[in-house]
Amino acid sequence: MTDGPGDGEQLVVALDVGGTGMKCALVRPDGSVAHAERHPTDAGRGPDAVVETVLAVAEGLADRARAAGSTPVACGVAVPGVVDEAAGVAVWSANVGFRDVPLRKLVGARLGLPAVLGHDVRVGGIAEARLGAGRDARHVLFVAIGTGIAAAHVVAGSAAVGAHGAAGEIGHILVRPDGPRCGCGRPGCLEAVSSASAIARRYAELADATTQAGPPGVGTAAPPAGAATRPAGTAVSAAEVAGRAAAGEELAGQVWREAVEALADGLATGQALYDVDTMVIGGGLARAGEQLLGPLRATLHERMTFHREPRLVAAALGDEAGCLGAALLALDSLERR
Amino acid sequence: MTDGPGDGEQLVVALDVGGTGMKCALVRPDGSVAHAERHPTDAGRGPDAVVETVLAVAEGLADRARAAGSTPVACGVAVPGVVDEAAGVAVWSANVGFRDVPLRKLVGARLGLPAVLGHDVRVGGIAEARLGAGRDARHVLFVAIGTGIAAAHVVAGSAAVGAHGAAGEIGHILVRPDGPRCGCGRPGCLEAVSSASAIARRYAELADATTQAGPPGVGTAAPPAGAATRPAGTAVSAAEVAGRAAAGEELAGQVWREAVEALADGLATGQALYDVDTMVIGGGLARAGEQLLGPLRATLHERMTFHREPRLVAAALGDEAGCLGAALLALDSLERR
Repeated sequence: MTDGPGDGEQLVVALDVGGTGMKCALVRPDGSVAHAERHPTDAGRGPDAVVETVLAVAEGLADRARAAGSTPVACGVAVPGVVDEAAGVAVWSANVGFRDVPLRKLVGARLGLPAVLGHDVRVGGIAEARLGAGRDARHVLFVAIGTGIAAAHVVAGSAAVGAHGAAGEIGHILVRPDGPRCGCGRPGCLEAVSSASAIARRYAELADATTQAGPPGVGTAAPPAGAATRPAGTAVSAAEVAGRAAAGEELAGQVWREAVEALADGLATGQALYDVDTMVIGGGLARAGEQLLGPLRATLHERMTFHREPRLVAAALGDEAGCLGAALLALDSLERR
Repeated sequence: MTDGPGDGEQLVVALDVGGTGMKCALVRPDGSVAHAERHPTDAGRGPDAVVETVLAVAEGLADRARAAGSTPVACGVAVPGVVDEAAGVAVWSANVGFRDVPLRKLVGARLGLPAVLGHDVRVGGIAEARLGAGRDARHVLFVAIGTGIAAAHVVAGSAAVGAHGAAGEIGHILVRPDGPRCGCGRPGCLEAVSSASAIARRYAELADATTQAGPPGVGTAAPPAGAATRPAGTAVSAAEVAGRAAAGEELAGQVWREAVEALADGLATGQALYDVDTMVIGGGLARAGEQLLGPLRATLHERMTFHREPRLVAAALGDEAGCLGAALLALDSLERR
């Protein structure tokens, strides 16, 4: 994939800082990757240590570019949580431990280069819309489904940021008023029903209930297949739930169906408000591929009445989208200077 | 309000074509109105006759401008329904009877002026955002609540149109999965719970049920106040429901509360996806003023968790917003030429 920085090339230093790891690269103006590396975030060390790693890794990448005769021209950094892109501040990133970190200023000062700070899902959406699965569409909604659910609305290659850097929070729209309580405190958010963690939680709940109660009136009979294969309380991941559902296990099928239906409701709401050409589904849950996209497409189709149905496709850039998007954001900032 | 076209002024011809009436004006580049007039749409005559009236009224306004020594420089027309602004076609306007009417071309040809076609709620949102209740905000959501519910997301004075001219359909987002069926065919849309027509319908249903059944176990007792004041089946408007709720009638209070709660859910979803500074509430239901906005603000407040709460204000331009917005859209098109 990467062919090394070339002599005389202009390159962007790009970092996507996540809760567990950092994806880092030197990226050309056409979006191709000259060099890529990964580092652990090790957030437990505290925010100061993480910031120092970010700065050291960025500096190392710039040095590597110069050593090869290339010119680093800018640096883009993506972080999760609430990001004030205009101010360049990581307002709140729970899983990285950042709170009001002026990361743009710190990176710019250390590297002596123009720097930008972006939101991981928004820059991921920019990358998917320009270089990935949405590259033929002008209006794209990128939806990342993992531990949480978030979206980026990208029109003509630019992602909507919102008035307070919080646009695209599709994980926190109401889909099930009587549904489970979300981490945000409200009941029935999409994230509380259809995220990978919600699917795993729901499966565990139902399996435990089945194991403990047994089928009505046959308390001593063998528990059904889903519960029989594991002791109560053992964690089963969303990917395993998908696998069991595909293998015909009834309980897993029910949990998967519930999640897909709520997700279709959420996407239908997104389409009503944004009206896009293409929805790009990314994040860990999208690795289920057509097992997710097939039923999701069919269920979304049922929900479209007078609206035009968006094309529903899997993300193409995998977990490199954030790093590529950080580079694109940095390149955009150079154009605007 | 209007002071007549002046000698040497540049003016825009603007028309907002609704199901029952057309609001028409000559508008200055600063948004002030030089002359205003209204005409019945009389949609029952069929689309050809309505189009002819639109063209004749527009021509009459241009002539009036010229007669006063002013120069008509462009024409903006707003229509409801599905509008392809890029193509200038009224794709589908049920209450006006338009289907695939190339209104921009027709108006431009008749007047010999640059013409634009806009969506009534989107241009209304532009007007409220630039000249009305949202004029101090950069990110505005204009929500029009009447027979239906629709929104316009306006950033820096421009309204998002979407990939197919259908952005902002907040009336058709899911808020009550077990709720009443919407006109669009899906159950539980916001419009099916919180529009003026939904409020009137819900009140009638509950009042009829109460009248027919009577309070449990006291079939011969006097029916409650709401039902007592009218025979079953009589239409009570949303405005009357608001009035009765304010007067302390229990049934009306319940219906009003249900509508406000669903509306707050819908606005919370809008805030999660758009992240605006200010929400401007317009349309017929907004005439209830603080009786709507007070509880709506309180209920929306409860729904905000990590999101910043938008300012919630009543629309300032009344039913002139669409006509003013059509003029602004025409002025914008001149700037881009």
